[in-house]
Amino acid sequence: MTAFADRLIEAVRAKGAPFCAGLDPMPEQIPKLFGETGSIAALQGFCAAIIPLAARYAAVLKPQLGFFEPYGAEGFGAALESVAQAQNAGLVVLLDAKRGDIGSTAEGYARACLGPKPGFDADCVTINPYLGRDSIEPFLKLAERNAKGVAVLVRTSNPGARDLQDLVVDGAPLWRRTAEMIAPLAERLRGASGWSGLMAVAGATWPQEARALREALPHALFLVPGYGAQGAGAADAVAGFIKGAGGKLEGGVVSSSRAVLYPRGAAEARTLADWRAAIESAMAASARELAAACAG
Amino acid sequence: MTAFADRLIEAVRAKGAPFCAGLDPMPEQIPKLFGETGSIAALQGFCAAIIPLAARYAAVLKPQLGFFEPYGAEGFGAALESVAQAQNAGLVVLLDAKRGDIGSTAEGYARACLGPKPGFDADCVTINPYLGRDSIEPFLKLAERNAKGVAVLVRTSNPGARDLQDLVVDGAPLWRRTAEMIAPLAERLRGASGWSGLMAVAGATWPQEARALREALPHALFLVPGYGAQGAGAADAVAGFIKGAGGKLEGGVVSSSRAVLYPRGAAEARTLADWRAAIESAMAASARELAAACAG
Repeated sequence: MTAFADRLIEAVRAKGAPFCAGLDPMPEQIPKLFGETGSIAALQGFCAAIIPLAARYAAVLKPQLGFFEPYGAEGFGAALESVAQAQNAGLVVLLDAKRGDIGSTAEGYARACLGPKPGFDADCVTINPYLGRDSIEPFLKLAERNAKGVAVLVRTSNPGARDLQDLVVDGAPLWRRTAEMIAPLAERLRGASGWSGLMAVAGATWPQEARALREALPHALFLVPGYGAQGAGAADAVAGFIKGAGGKLEGGVVSSSRAVLYPRGAAEARTLADWRAAIESAMAASARELAAACAG
Repeated sequence: MTAFADRLIEAVRAKGAPFCAGLDPMPEQIPKLFGETGSIAALQGFCAAIIPLAARYAAVLKPQLGFFEPYGAEGFGAALESVAQAQNAGLVVLLDAKRGDIGSTAEGYARACLGPKPGFDADCVTINPYLGRDSIEPFLKLAERNAKGVAVLVRTSNPGARDLQDLVVDGAPLWRRTAEMIAPLAERLRGASGWSGLMAVAGATWPQEARALREALPHALFLVPGYGAQGAGAADAVAGFIKGAGGKLEGGVVSSSRAVLYPRGAAEARTLADWRAAIESAMAASARELAAACAG
């Protein structure tokens, strides 16, 4: 089994850009071409149509479970299906579930997200650190055993991140303490590439902090959300990356969701072909921008 | 619509004890009477059998989603079914999902947990505060509209709670800052009873802190986990409660899972009747202990 970190880095190199396509199927934004607004058919059709396009431009697909669960068991099933479809299309799948619990409950979530069928068998899952180290351990254990990854929320890109994550503890913000808490754990998921599959989620809206975070977590791959629709540019997004083997910046993936799922022209598309062209053009642009930012 | 806080307090008064039965269907612990270990049938049968017994002794049922999701879409469906069964049996349902996200994703989770079918339509849901106020807002908004509750993790009962929650920010632990963050929001879910449906999750293993938390959050109902199997006694568990209308301590519910789901004698029961007797005896004991602790 190839370590998750190595698979992710390999996928980024193969695609030429650290591009992670977010799969956020927002009911109101899905074009009528895919079915009635809010229907499970529209959700399924939209996801099934996005995945092969994402596979052409993105290294990673990040399905956002919060957009599937409102549809109940059928929605949960649609998410499971999307993960399998994406992996079959060659994408690395990072399940954005933001789980966080303790003991046997955490083991349950870990098995659900990273374990084999009937689990998601995703390559990596996002988790919340508030409950502490023992809430991370069950995910880490399963990740070690199954060559998976775990992405811990460190400093998110929303305004509310200031409320707790930026509070100062002994001269440094809490998010820095979160980074220090997971730093020793990162060793356990290091691959042959030197990178660790214990990822840190670090918003793209604050490049300086990304550099500070890189110091605290030299080997952790970063998952950088907030690029595109949330306003940060490509250069800011890769601020925590470092020069890799081929002279390019590497060290994680940058996620864009709305900008590539609902780009200009897509909502008005009269045919699937027109819609596909709009999506491809947006995805190609994101991949190109990120590739340029990493070229140095 | 009766406010969630009033419904919870009413249920506690009706049952005579602030007892919340945790529904943690651990595959290895479910007796063979219900089917093959690890099968969905065993999960469903066990939950369906527990619910009517819980309805006799507990005011609240707290299904732990992490034990359902490893079964995939069928497991998610089983959780949906359990919530409906419990509500039909007269229980207030507090869905232990520990969700936490932002923007439209948080809205999705809120709709999934607190919204009507195909959502869970649960009475209350647990959420994680690490992402800040804007991650709480979508849950709060839906709770206001639909007379539901929201239970925010403040200070959990696991050893790892020390890692971040106890870090000192300006002279007080982080969990205290979390409490201060949600305090102004509590007003929005206050019922006629005076209590607020913005609940605080506060572990039973640290009674002194519970009293400090009550100062910070005078109107918030507490969800106290960690009672029973996790070692805390009934008096400690209600340390954050205050004298209510009838002279009894009130101000939340205390949760017990393993001690009432897998009590001595239940695993070896040869018949469903024997199993039921073991469960009822454990639930009655928990309810009795908590009632006594609240009698003052």
